[in-house]
Amino acid sequence: MSLHDLASTPKPPYYAAIFTSQRSEGDGGYGATAERMLELARAQPGFLGVESVREAAGLGITVSYWSSREDIRAWKDVLEHRAAQARGRAQWYTGYQLRICKVEAEHGFRSH
Amino acid sequence: MSLHDLASTPKPPYYAAIFTSQRSEGDGGYGATAERMLELARAQPGFLGVESVREAAGLGITVSYWSSREDIRAWKDVLEHRAAQARGRAQWYTGYQLRICKVEAEHGFRSH
Repeated sequence: MSLHDLASTPKPPYYAAIFTSQRSEGDGGYGATAERMLELARAQPGFLGVESVREAAGLGITVSYWSSREDIRAWKDVLEHRAAQARGRAQWYTGYQLRICKVEAEHGFRSH
Repeated sequence: MSLHDLASTPKPPYYAAIFTSQRSEGDGGYGATAERMLELARAQPGFLGVESVREAAGLGITVSYWSSREDIRAWKDVLEHRAAQARGRAQWYTGYQLRICKVEAEHGFRSH
């Protein structure tokens, strides 16, 4: 599973956390922490997959998929993740929005 | 409202259509059609906002927000949109996934 690919998810219903963010300038430890958070998220109960894209101008969308809303809440409360969230507000982001969603239906297409 | 910004959405519940896609190489009319689809979507009943990011390697995530699931279904069935969807499968995308979600909760942060 790559960050640079479409996620394979089970039949709905399941949950999605849509995290849209605008990065401030410079790295300031962001890249290393982002990688670490991904590693931690993948080890969390209920983690199903993730898709993440950021454009050069700084706008990014990361969607993580989870078995239940409780799994998302538990991930939010992981201590190391909470520390990263605080640093995100203080340093890495000029703004973000997190939306918690129930995936009700999906369909897709692959040419190969 | 810019595509290159965070969307302002009302208090949940509302709906999100998460469209994750992998572009094939070359433009082939894609850019013009994508702009036209955005213009059409904005004029549809129930349209609330959109966030869209594509990275150089071709992976993109576009999340559009809607008042109801019926509004998303109506947008899917717009004739010009259906034609674009068919061309997307034939030409513009090597793969995509569309997930229809109910946004149950959200929170955000703005530094300015």
